This record gives sequence, C-alpha cells and structure tokens, in this order.
Amino acid sequence: MQGQAQQQAYDRGITIFSPDGRLYQVEYAREAVKRGTASIGIRTEGGVVLAVDKRIRSELMERTSVEKIHKADDHIGIASAGHVADARQLIDFARQQTQVNRLRYGEPIGVETLTKEVTDHIQQYTQVGGARPFGVALIIGGIEDGEPRLYETDPSGTPYEWKALAVGADRGEIQEYLEDNYSEAMDLDGGIELALRALGSVNDDELSPEGVGIATVDAETEQFLELSNDETEEYLSELGLLGGGDESEPEEE
Amino acid sequence: MQGQAQQQAYDRGITIFSPDGRLYQVEYAREAVKRGTASIGIRTEGGVVLAVDKRIRSELMERTSVEKIHKADDHIGIASAGHVADARQLIDFARQQTQVNRLRYGEPIGVETLTKEVTDHIQQYTQVGGARPFGVALIIGGIEDGEPRLYETDPSGTPYEWKALAVGADRGEIQEYLEDNYSEAMDLDGGIELALRALGSVNDDELSPEGVGIATVDAETEQFLELSNDETEEYLSELGLLGGGDESEPEEE
Amino acid sequence: MQGQAQQQAYDRGITIFSPDGRLYQVEYAREAVKRGTASIGIRTEGGVVLAVDKRIRSELMERTSVEKIHKADDHIGIASAGHVADARQLIDFARQQTQVNRLRYGEPIGVETLTKEVTDHIQQYTQVGGARPFGVALIIGGIEDGEPRLYETDPSGTPYEWKALAVGADRGEIQEYLEDNYSEAMDLDGGIELALRALGSVNDDELSPEGVGIATVDAETEQFLELSNDETEEYLSELGLLGGGDESEPEEE
Amino acid sequence: MQGQAQQQAYDRGITIFSPDGRLYQVEYAREAVKRGTASIGIRTEGGVVLAVDKRIRSELMERTSVEKIHKADDHIGIASAGHVADARQLIDFARQQTQVNRLRYGEPIGVETLTKEVTDHIQQYTQVGGARPFGVALIIGGIEDGEPRLYETDPSGTPYEWKALAVGADRGEIQEYLEDNYSEAMDLDGGIELALRALGSVNDDELSPEGVGIATVDAETEQFLELSNDETEEYLSELGLLGGGDESEPEEE
Amino acid sequence: MQGQAQQQAYDRGITIFSPDGRLYQVEYAREAVKRGTASIGIRTEGGVVLAVDKRIRSELMERTSVEKIHKADDHIGIASAGHVADARQLIDFARQQTQVNRLRYGEPIGVETLTKEVTDHIQQYTQVGGARPFGVALIIGGIEDGEPRLYETDPSGTPYEWKALAVGADRGEIQEYLEDNYSEAMDLDGGIELALRALGSVNDDELSPEGVGIATVDAETEQFLELSNDETEEYLSELGLLGGGDESEPEEE
Amino acid sequence: MQGQAQQQAYDRGITIFSPDGRLYQVEYAREAVKRGTASIGIRTEGGVVLAVDKRIRSELMERTSVEKIHKADDHIGIASAGHVADARQLIDFARQQTQVNRLRYGEPIGVETLTKEVTDHIQQYTQVGGARPFGVALIIGGIEDGEPRLYETDPSGTPYEWKALAVGADRGEIQEYLEDNYSEAMDLDGGIELALRALGSVNDDELSPEGVGIATVDAETEQFLELSNDETEEYLSELGLLGGGDESEPEEE
Amino acid sequence: MQGQAQQQAYDRGITIFSPDGRLYQVEYAREAVKRGTASIGIRTEGGVVLAVDKRIRSELMERTSVEKIHKADDHIGIASAGHVADARQLIDFARQQTQVNRLRYGEPIGVETLTKEVTDHIQQYTQVGGARPFGVALIIGGIEDGEPRLYETDPSGTPYEWKALAVGADRGEIQEYLEDNYSEAMDLDGGIELALRALGSVNDDELSPEGVGIATVDAETEQFLELSNDETEEYLSELGLLGGGDESEPEEE
Repeated sequence: MQGQAQQQAYDRGITIFSPDGRLYQVEYAREAVKRGTASIGIRTEGGVVLAVDKRIRSELMERTSVEKIHKADDHIGIASAGHVADARQLIDFARQQTQVNRLRYGEPIGVETLTKEVTDHIQQYTQVGGARPFGVALIIGGIEDGEPRLYETDPSGTPYEWKALAVGADRGEIQEYLEDNYSEAMDLDGGIELALRALGSVNDDELSPEGVGIATVDAETEQFLELSNDETEEYLSELGLLGGGDESEPEEE
Repeated sequence: MQGQAQQQAYDRGITIFSPDGRLYQVEYAREAVKRGTASIGIRTEGGVVLAVDKRIRSELMERTSVEKIHKADDHIGIASAGHVADARQLIDFARQQTQVNRLRYGEPIGVETLTKEVTDHIQQYTQVGGARPFGVALIIGGIEDGEPRLYETDPSGTPYEWKALAVGADRGEIQEYLEDNYSEAMDLDGGIELALRALGSVNDDELSPEGVGIATVDAETEQFLELSNDETEEYLSELGLLGGGDESEPEEE
Repeated sequence: MQGQAQQQAYDRGITIFSPDGRLYQVEYAREAVKRGTASIGIRTEGGVVLAVDKRIRSELMERTSVEKIHKADDHIGIASAGHVADARQLIDFARQQTQVNRLRYGEPIGVETLTKEVTDHIQQYTQVGGARPFGVALIIGGIEDGEPRLYETDPSGTPYEWKALAVGADRGEIQEYLEDNYSEAMDLDGGIELALRALGSVNDDELSPEGVGIATVDAETEQFLELSNDETEEYLSELGLLGGGDESEPEEE
Repeated sequence: MQGQAQQQAYDRGITIFSPDGRLYQVEYAREAVKRGTASIGIRTEGGVVLAVDKRIRSELMERTSVEKIHKADDHIGIASAGHVADARQLIDFARQQTQVNRLRYGEPIGVETLTKEVTDHIQQYTQVGGARPFGVALIIGGIEDGEPRLYETDPSGTPYEWKALAVGADRGEIQEYLEDNYSEAMDLDGGIELALRALGSVNDDELSPEGVGIATVDAETEQFLELSNDETEEYLSELGLLGGGDESEPEEE
Repeated sequence: MQGQAQQQAYDRGITIFSPDGRLYQVEYAREAVKRGTASIGIRTEGGVVLAVDKRIRSELMERTSVEKIHKADDHIGIASAGHVADARQLIDFARQQTQVNRLRYGEPIGVETLTKEVTDHIQQYTQVGGARPFGVALIIGGIEDGEPRLYETDPSGTPYEWKALAVGADRGEIQEYLEDNYSEAMDLDGGIELALRALGSVNDDELSPEGVGIATVDAETEQFLELSNDETEEYLSELGLLGGGDESEPEEE
Repeated sequence: MQGQAQQQAYDRGITIFSPDGRLYQVEYAREAVKRGTASIGIRTEGGVVLAVDKRIRSELMERTSVEKIHKADDHIGIASAGHVADARQLIDFARQQTQVNRLRYGEPIGVETLTKEVTDHIQQYTQVGGARPFGVALIIGGIEDGEPRLYETDPSGTPYEWKALAVGADRGEIQEYLEDNYSEAMDLDGGIELALRALGSVNDDELSPEGVGIATVDAETEQFLELSNDETEEYLSELGLLGGGDESEPEEE
Repeated sequence: MQGQAQQQAYDRGITIFSPDGRLYQVEYAREAVKRGTASIGIRTEGGVVLAVDKRIRSELMERTSVEKIHKADDHIGIASAGHVADARQLIDFARQQTQVNRLRYGEPIGVETLTKEVTDHIQQYTQVGGARPFGVALIIGGIEDGEPRLYETDPSGTPYEWKALAVGADRGEIQEYLEDNYSEAMDLDGGIELALRALGSVNDDELSPEGVGIATVDAETEQFLELSNDETEEYLSELGLLGGGDESEPEEE
C-alpha cells in the first residue's frame, strides 16, 4: 500500500519549487537519464568523438534501431541518453533549427547556438504548466569556425561546454575515467580509443562491435561520420577490448 | 476500502516522472498491452509475416470484427495488441500518413518513416497534459526499397526495429520461442510456419483456423495479403497444430 | 463516513490507466450500461431484429417515451441500453453521420462505417480530459450491400460484429440463451421469436406487448420497421409468453 | 470535523462515474429538485394542466415572484421544481428555442421537439467538465398537432412523456395519488380538480388560492392560460380544500 | 491544526452539489451577505424606500465612501449588503444594463427586467467553473409603469419580489419587525419612518444621521433621491431615535 | 512535519468562500500588507499629505529604490504598503488610467474615478480563478475640482475615502494616533507634522530624514511634490524627532 | 515515507498566499538562488564592477560555459545567481528589451528602465497561474546619463538599487564584508579589489583566476568589458589571494 501511496503522488501536478529550492520533476527527469545506457563525448584537436553503448534487449532486435547517435547537420552530431521517445523529440527540434539557420542565414548553425536553442526549448517544459520535463540528456558535438566544440544539455535546460563527458548509466565512473585519462593533445584516433576504453572500464573491458556506436566530426572535413562495425571491431581488437556478445540486459527505458 | 483508495489514485493527474525516473502512466499502458491477446511479426528474406491470436468471447461474435491485422497501405500491414479502441485511433492516424505521403511526394511511404510518424504521435500523449497515453503496441511490417522491414511501436512512443517479435499476452514466452527458432534465411512460408508454431507453443499446440489471423507482405510483389481460413487451415494441418474451437476465454479488454 | 470517502473519489479526475492497465472510468461506464434494461440484436438471413425491454416506472408514464429503439436511416436501426441521456447524444451523432454520408456520397452509409464513426467518437471521451465516457452501449443493425449486419459499440469505443447479442441488465443470462438457441438459417420471423423467448427467459416467461419493443430491417426491402403492439401481442400469444402488466419496477437510470 | 470533511469533498471535481455506474453529481442534483416545492402536470382530453405549490417564506414576499409556471410559447407552458436560478436558465433556453423555431420554420415548435432540445442541453452539463448539472426538473406541457402532450426533463437530461406526474417535494406521495385517481377521459376541469386534490393530499387538504398556481393549455384554443386567484378560489371552495394562509414554511432553495 | 485543515478545504474547487442537493459555495456566499451591515427596502403606495446602516470603522473614514445606496437609473435605486467589492461589480453591471436599454429601446428599463438581467448574471457564477459566486445581496427598487416595485437578488441568482425586506446583518430580526409593522397603505413618509424604526429596533433605538442612508424613488416624479443628513436627522428626532455617534464597530467585510 | 502540512495547503487553489463567508486568500493578502512598512495619508484643507516609512535592509541599499511614494499624475500621488512587486503592477495600471483619461476626455482623471478603476481591477483577482489577489494596499491622494481627496484600496478591491489613515505595519497604533490628533482645519504643514509625529509614535520618536518619505499635493497648485531630505530633516528637527540611522531591520517583503 | 509526503506537496499548485501573507513559491525560489554560487556587484565613482564565482564540477568542463556574467548592451552587464536555465530566459528577455529600446527610441535603454522591465516580467510568474516563479536573482549594472547604476532583481519581481551587493551562496557573509569595507569614493580598480577580497573572504582567501569572473562598465567609456584570466591573475596575486585550483565542489543547480 505504501508503494501505491508513493506512486499516486506522481500522477499529478506541475513543476514547482520545493522548500529547499529544488525542482523535483527536473531531478526525477535526471533519474530517467540515468536509466538509459551510457553515452560519451570527447573533444580532441582533430575533432569530436561521440560513443554510445548500444546494448539491446533481444538478439532479434535490430541494433540499428537503437538510435543513440544522430546526425543533426553535416558538421554536427548528437548522442543521447535517457527516455528514447523524448530524445527523438529533441533531435527533431534540433534538426529543424539547423535547417532554419541554413534557410535564414545561408550558413551552417554554430554548435553553441544550436545547443542554446535546444536548452531554451527544454527550459520551457520545466517552468510552464501542462507538460513534464524531457527525460533525456544530449551531447552535441561539432565544428564551429574550424574549432571542435562539445556541449551537454540536461533536463533543467542548462547548457554546459565540455572537453569530455559521459551521460546516462555509470556516468560517475566513466566521468572519473575520463578525468584521469583525458589529454587535450589527442587526435581523433586517440579520442576514439579513450572513449572505447572508458566504455570498457564499466563493462569488464569486453565490448562487441555491434554493442557500441561511434561517430566523429573531423575538424578539417567538418563532416559527421559513423564508424562501420568492421572499423569498430578493428579498434576494439587493437585495444584488447573485443568481447563476445552483450548478454547483460539493459534496463528497459 | 484499500482497493478503493488504490483506484482513486488513478482517476486523476497527468503523466509525470516518479522519483526513480519512471513514467507510471506509460508503464500502466504497457500493462494494457499485455491484457490484449498476442500478435507476432516475423521478417524473412521473402517478406514480412504478421500473425495474431483472434480468440473471441462468444461463438456468436463475428471473428472478422476482431480487428488485429490492418492494411495501412498496399505495401504495409500492421498488427496490434492491447486496448482495441486505442489501436483503431493509431491505425487511422497511420493510414492518413500513408495517404498524405502519396499525395505530397507521389510515392509510397517508407516503413521506417511511417513508424516514426506514429511514435512521435504517441510520445505527445506521454508528455503534454490533458490526455492519457495509448494503451496499445503496434507491429508495422512492409517492404521499403525492396527490403522487408519490421518495426514495433510501444506506449512510450519508442520505435524499435526487429527481425521477429511478439507483443501482448505471453510476450515473454513467445519471444523466447522466436529467439530459439528464428533464422534469417527463412522464406515467407517458413515465416508463417514459425509464427504459427510460436502461437501454438502457448496454446497447447492446438489452434483453429478461425482463431488465428495471418497476413504477409511479399518482398517481390510488395503487396499486403491476408490468408483465407482455408489457407490457414492447410498450414495448421501440415504443422500438426490443427485444434478444435477456442474454448479458453480471453480476458475482456 | 466510509461511503462518503468512496463517493468523493469519483467526483474528480479524468480517465487514466490503473497499474494493471485498466481504465476504471470505462469500466464504471460499463456498469452504467448494466443498470439499463436489456436490449437484444439478432441477425438472420432475412434481416436483423432489434428487441428491447421497455418496462416503465409508473403506469402514468407513456411507454413511447422509453426510447430504446431508434431509426438511424431507412436501412439502419439502433437499440440502446444504459444511461438514456447519453444514448440520445450518440443517436443524434449517428443520425448526423447518415445524413452527411447521403449528402457527400449520394448513397446510404454502410452499417460498419456508421459503427466505426460512432466508436471513434466514443473513444475520444475515454482518452482526452475534460469529459467522462458515454455510459451506454448500442446495437447497430442494418443492411449493407444486401447483407444483414449487426454491430455493438461499448463504452471503450470498441466495435464488435455479432450474429446475436444482448446488452444491459441480465446480459450474461440472455447471451447464454442466445448461444444455446441461435441458428444462422433463421428467417426474420424466427429472429423475432428467438428475441422474445430470450427476453422471456429472464422474465418468468411472461411479457406484455407494451413492455416490449421490436423492430426489424428486412434484407429485401432494406427498410427499418417497428412492430405495433398488436403485432407484438400476436407473437407473444403464439409463443405462450403473453403475460399481465410489468409490475416489477426497473432500476431508475 | 466530520461534517467539514464531508462538505469539502463536494467543493471540487467534475461529473464522472462511480464504480457502480452512477453519476453522483446528477443524483445530488435530483436531491436539489426534491428541495423545491411540488409541481404537477396532468394531461386530459381537453388539454394539459400545470399546478404548482407557491408557498412563500414571508407574508411580505410577493407571490408573483415565486415563478414556477412559465409560458414558453402561445401553446406551451412549463412548470418547474428545484433550484430556482437554474430553472430560469432553462426557461430562457426553452423560450429561445421556441422563437428560433418560429423564425426558421415559420411555425410553432412541437412539444416533444422542445423537450428534447432542452434535455440535450441539460445532458451536456453532465458529461463535459467545467460546470455542474442543472438542479431542476421541468414539466413541459402543450398542444402538438391538436393533441395534448406532457413531458418531464430531469437533471440527467432524460426526456419522459407522462399522462400525469409530480416533481419536487413529496413527489412520491403525490405521484401515488395521481396513479390512484387519474383517468384518461377527464376534461380540463377534471384535470384541474385532480391536480388540486393531489396537492391537497400532502397539505392536510387545506390550500389557499394564493399558495397555488394553475395554468392550462386548451386543446382547442391551443392557448396557454393562467388562472386568477378568484378562479382558483372557486375551485378550492368547490373541492372543500379552501384553507387559511400557508403557515408552513417551505425549505429555502 | 484543525482550523488549518478546515480552511484549506475552501481554497480550491468549483461550485458543485452536495449529496443533499445543496450548493455550499452559494450558502457560504449567503454568509458573506450576513457579514455586511443591514439594508432595508420598503414599497409604499407613494414609491419605494431604501435604507441602509452606514456604520464606519473609524471616525476618520468618510461616510460617503460607505457606498451601500446606488442610483442605477433616474427611476431605479439599489441598496446592497455583503462583500463591498462584489457589490460594486454588480452595480456596474446593472448600470450598463440600464444604459443599454435606453440606447436599444429608447426607454427606461423595467425594474423586473433589470433584476432578472442581474440574477441571470449572478447564476452563471454559481454553475460554470473558474470563478466564485458573488457574496452580495441587492435590493432593487424603482417605478415601472407608474407602479412601485421592489426586488431582491441573492447569491444563488434567484429574483424575489417583496413588499418590504431586509438583507445583511440582523436580517431575521428586522424582517420580523417589518412583518409586524408593514401596511400596504403607507405613503413614502410612512415608509421612511418604518425603515428607520426597523433599523433602530436592532440598535437600541439610537441612530445617528450620519450612520444611516436613506433614498426614495417617488411614484409620481419617478426620480431617485437621497436624503441629506439634515433631512435624516429631522426624521430621527421626530421618531425619538436620534442617538450619539455609532461607537459599535461593524465587522470588517 | 506539521509546518509542512500547513504550507502545502496554500500552494493550490483559487479564491472561494469559507463556511463563514470569508475569502481566506483576500485575508491572507491583508497579512501581506501588514508585512510591509507603514504608509500614511492625511487630508488637510491645503491639500493631501503622503508619508511613508522607508527603512532599508542594508546601508548599501539605495533608499531611492524603496519606492513607496509614486506620482500617478500631476495632481495625484499614491503611497503603497505590502508586497512591493504587486504594488508596482497596480501603480502601472493606475498610470495607464490617468493617461487614458487625458487622451480620451482631454482632462485630468478624478481621484475617485481613478480609485474605482483600480479597485475594480483588484476585485477581478479575487473572484476569477487562475491568479491570486494583490498583496498590497494603496493610499491614493490628490485634488479633484479644487478639493483634496484621499482614498484607500485594499486587497478585496473595496474603495474607502478617508480624512487620514495608515496602512501596513503598526496600522492599528498609527491609526489610533491619527484619530486622537487629527483636525480638519489643518493646513499642509500641519498635515506633514501630524504624519511625522504619527510615524514617530511607533519608532520611539526618532526618525532619520532618509528613513522617511514625504509628498504633498497642494490644493492650490494641484501639483504633486516630494520633499527633499533637507526639507524633511528641517521638519524632524523642528518636531524633536530627528534621530540617528534606522538600525531596526524591517521584515523583508 | 515522510520525505515522500513532503515532496509530493510541491508537485502541484500555483503561487498563492499563506495565512501569514507569505508567497511560499517565491520564498522557495529564493532558496534556489542560494543554491547557486555567489555573484557580486559594486558601484564606484569610476563605474560598476560585476564579480562571480565560476567554480565548476569537473576539470573537464569548460569554464566559459559557466555563464554568470552577461553583456546586455554595450553599456550594461548582468551577473546572475541561481537556477541557470531560468537565468538564461531572463537574460534573453533583457537583451530583447535593450534592442527594442534602441529600435523604438534610437537610444540605449536606461539601467533603471531595463531593471523594471525585467522585474515586471518576473512578477507575472508569481501572480498568474500555470507557471512557477523564476529561481534566479540578477545584478544589473551599467551607466545611465554618465552615472554608474547598480540594481538587483529578486524572485518576487522587486527591483532594488544598491551601492554594493551579493546574491547566491554565502550572501549573508559577503554582504557583511561589503558593508564593512565599501567606500563610495572608490575607483573601478578599488571596486575590483573589494569584490575579489569579498569573494576570498568566503573561500579561505584563495581564488584561482579561472574560478572567478570579473566584468566592468566604465563610467567614461560606457563600455562593458570582461577581464582576461591574466588580468584577473594579476589582481589576485597583488591582493595575495592567488590560490590553486578550486577543489571544493559547488552544489549542482
């Protein structure tokens, strides 16, 4: 009965302040992010790297349908973690912004500009009644004026710029790994390797090529590019991380 | 009195996050899906197969009125499980999308595109207040660029692509049967047989032709086709699954 | 006080899912249907039969004002059970659909099409906030392409096609009687007799001509027709069911 | 404190179903009707009779301001019982309908048509949120195609046709009196006498001319007509019902 | 804590029926009327008299700002009791109605017509959600077709016609006094004297000219007229009611 | 926990009546007025005086930002007490009214007219849902037709006219002081002195020139004028009220 | 369970008054401000100084993304503290106001005018339902008519003018430090030094150049200017405040 009483509390209401100045709905939405598998972003001198955990529930599910890496524009990629259906809404919103920018100004949107359009959109869902916050965090990476840039959007609608970050499950451990091993002087290859090692660090150092998604935006070509399974396998094998399938079942989102 | 208190909790509110990041209304909608009889989708090299349990409450009910297989367009079929009236709304929405696509672009809609239009529609009912989520899961199967494709939409509004899947009652058992017996090299005939065997596995290996619905979308003809009772009977008899009527009464939805 | 607490729970809210995937407001609306006196529909080779229990509260009430059989169009009749004022709304809605169809397409509406227009309308009241579901079930019978068709709409907005069915009070017992005695080969006369016997089976085999309403849609003439009291009396007398007045007082709806 | 808790339950919410299929707000509105003094309608061969209890709170109140009999059109009168301010809204609505009918079709509105316009209006207030039901019952009497017709509208929005009926306080006792004494062969005079005797039956057989309101719609003239105090006194004296003032204080509505 | 719980119940909700058919919000609004000082209306052959208790909280408050008598049109005056700010809204509404009538029909509005426009407006606030009822009662007095007319509007939106009435504090006692002493044959002077005596009866027979407001609408001139303090003093002195200041502090509204 | 329960009651709802006819939200808004520092208005033969307590929280705060005296038009000033942000809204509203009046009628607005425009605006926030009342009281003083006029608006939306009044903290004590010492024959100078003495009476007879704000509207010039610190100091010194700084910290509003 | 009950109270409702005249939602929003790191504003004869604590959660986060100092126009800067996403909304709003002013009047907006536009906007979110207050405080500093001006906006929507102030974490201690050490005769350099010493006083007198943000608006040039890390380091070293990194982790907002 106690469980019922608890649950029933969350079937109503809008997002307002608690006595200690917290927005509970936003904090619960952060929990929804942690329920999603991990996503990683790394900024290197040669461009940005996005890496995601693509574990699936059943061997019969197509891994391509685990959409955690998204191309927002030629020069910008987005990795997401959390409530999948919410992520799709934000990705759609982001893509519209990139198109509007090209139409209106005749040039690609800046990474920071895009991030802030998205976070302003997210903030509205935390202040105005009649809807819940988005249960998703995004890592937005791309090239702006020749420079690699890497941003995070969280459920409160705050934009953060990072050198390297993790969102989703095991965020704490992976972030620690990144802090211990990140170096600004890395090239793209180094970034990919760091991302895979970080993912491996919370997976007993065993990853399957299908269970991992990798994308880069090269600082020179300014093009978003997803690695093939073969390319990923090569990296994993080189790093001694190549493991079997991914038996461990992720929590359903 | 306890039962009353429990019930009264669910007569109000909108969909918001619980402290552990869950959306209870979405999870309860998933329970509504499980209350419906099973539906199966299988992707083979020769096309996709949709198979549904059509048990009825009374011999006087017309089986044709148990609408669990729907033609969305010439090249796309949809099987549903869960709250029947909600399914009808989503099917209507899907059909509108296929027509709009033909009008606007002069060509049939892609299976993935259709799925995502539907899931985006579903997601709105989980975030914006004033309505409840849809208590239904859809299996959307069809041919896109000559390739068979098979998708699931769930009450959260997440799209998944599958090789083979089950939704509704006994989802767990049937999905396990599919995982043990699925082979990518099957042709349409093989897909129909696997679907019937899977349905039989949770029905004491006895099925009546009227109690089962089968439809296919052939990869070559790209045409949606429903099997007649005679054709279904032939398959069942061949597979040794041909049983009497379906005395077991399904739960009312 | 307990009764108060119980009642107070149902003075608020909108229709949402319970943890086990049920829509309580829809289930309570089904209870409202059971509070209405019984209505029966029977499909025969010669057309459809609608029969209703027209018991009244007081001898001074005009039986004609107990509107449980409604003409929707020349070729379609509707019998209702449940909350009378709600039934009137749905009947009005159905009549508008038949007129719109004639205006727009120059031809009478199909029975199935009409049913689904009505159930889609009903479903909206179970998903979108700000209103309660309809507390009424309809039996829609008519001729479509020369064929007799018989449908049910329930408070969830699900359409069912039937050979013969009962809704309202004593649904279980009457449905059982119909299952035991229905034969597809009946003509209209046989249908009327079955309907009256079924009604009699839950009324100690005594019915008064005024306490019963009968209508048919003949498959050949495709015309909706209500029986006069004299015609009904003849049937009752022939079947040995002719009883006195209806002293038993129906529950007020 | 218990009383407070009870009351507080009824200061919120909208009209929805209880688990046994009842609409409590509608049932409470029926209680509001019972709180009003009685109104009676009687249909005779010569026309319809409306009679109302016009007791007042204070000798200084003008009896003409106790508006319980209303002229809706030349050929239709309405008697009301229950929440007075609500009655005024429905009477206004009814009068608009009669005017619209004359404008649109160039002829007086039918009694049944008018009744159903009113009940459809009432029903909306029991299904759509944001308002409460009407706490009033109407007796609508008039001549349609030369025939006297007598209808009731109740708070659920259900229309009933009657030979004779009572609404408001003491409905049960007066209705019983009517059932025991009503005869279809009465003329208008007989109807007036029955109405007064019925009213007297719950007032110790003593009525004052001012404490009673009587109106008729003659089947031949098709004209609504209110009796003067003198005419009423004559009837009362003839019937031996002529009593003093009305000391008994009615409950305030 | 109990007090808190009680109060908290009345900070939400809309006006709906209680199980015994009462509208609590309307009844509480009637309590708000009783919290205001008394107002009296008297109809005589020579015209109508309005008299109000104008006690003030502090000697520094201007008595003219205690607006309890209002001129609605040349021939109609209004006295109010209850929540002052609400009264102002209704008076504004009433004045608009009188102006609209002059513009539209080129003639002064009838007293009854005006009263019913006001009560219809009040009723809306008791049935439709999103607002509370008006916590005020009005006495509307004037001349219509040469005849003095006197009406009351109460928070339920019911119009009553009176020969003489009191609203606000001590309504019961003053009304009793009026019933004992009212005579239809009074002229305006007699009406003023009765009103002052009635007010005195609940004030130890001591009234100050400033603490009382008197207005009349003469049946011949058909003009609204407020008495000066000197004129009032003359009446009080003549009646032996002339007292000191009004030390007794009225409850704040 | 008790405190929590209490607080939680006031985080919802709209303004409705309590069983004893009170509007709690309006009464709580009056408490918000008392939380503000005192403001005083005095009407003299020579014009009106407004005086306010301008204590500040920190020596580093600019006293000019404690806006408690506002110029509404050349001939009208307003002093406020209570929730500062709410006061700003009402002052803006008042200024718009003065401008609209000049534009529409080509002449300055009357003091009474302005007051009633403001109180009507305030009343709306106490009756219609979706907003809370204004937590502020205004003293509106000015010259109308050559005569000084002084009004109060309270959170219920009631306008009062005064000879002299205080609102905000210590209202009771200051009002008593005014009642004991007010004389209608004062000139402006006398009014200023009375206001300062009244303020001093609740501040140990010590005031600093910066801690007090004084403004006048002269009956002859009809001009709003604020006193400089030097002018105020002169008055204080003359009255023997000149004290040090204002160490006592006002409650934060 | 108690924690649950507490939390659940703040997931609903709108901003209304408590019995003691407080607006809890506004007070809780003030708590949200305290959860943010400190921001300081100082007005000197030479211009205004804004200084903020820019501590970050992880060494991998880009300090530039901790946006606490914002340029609103050439001559106006804004420092914020509290809920970051809310601050962004207000900064966007402020920037629109500065642009609108330039477009409409062809000149830069005044600092006071801008502040009041912002506070009026904030106030709306505390009175009208359907949204929560802003959980942020702003320090708005700039040059108006050659004079430095410094304002604060708080969550209630009240504007305050200051000589020097702190908002956010440790407001109390820093404000005390400022009161003890502020002198009106300072030049910009003196203002920067005071700001850094004040920040140091709550950080063990150790600050890193990266952990601190400094901006000025010079009274002569009227230009907003942010200090580089090198410039900040010079000041810190000069003041003996130069410390290591900022290990202390700020609370997440």
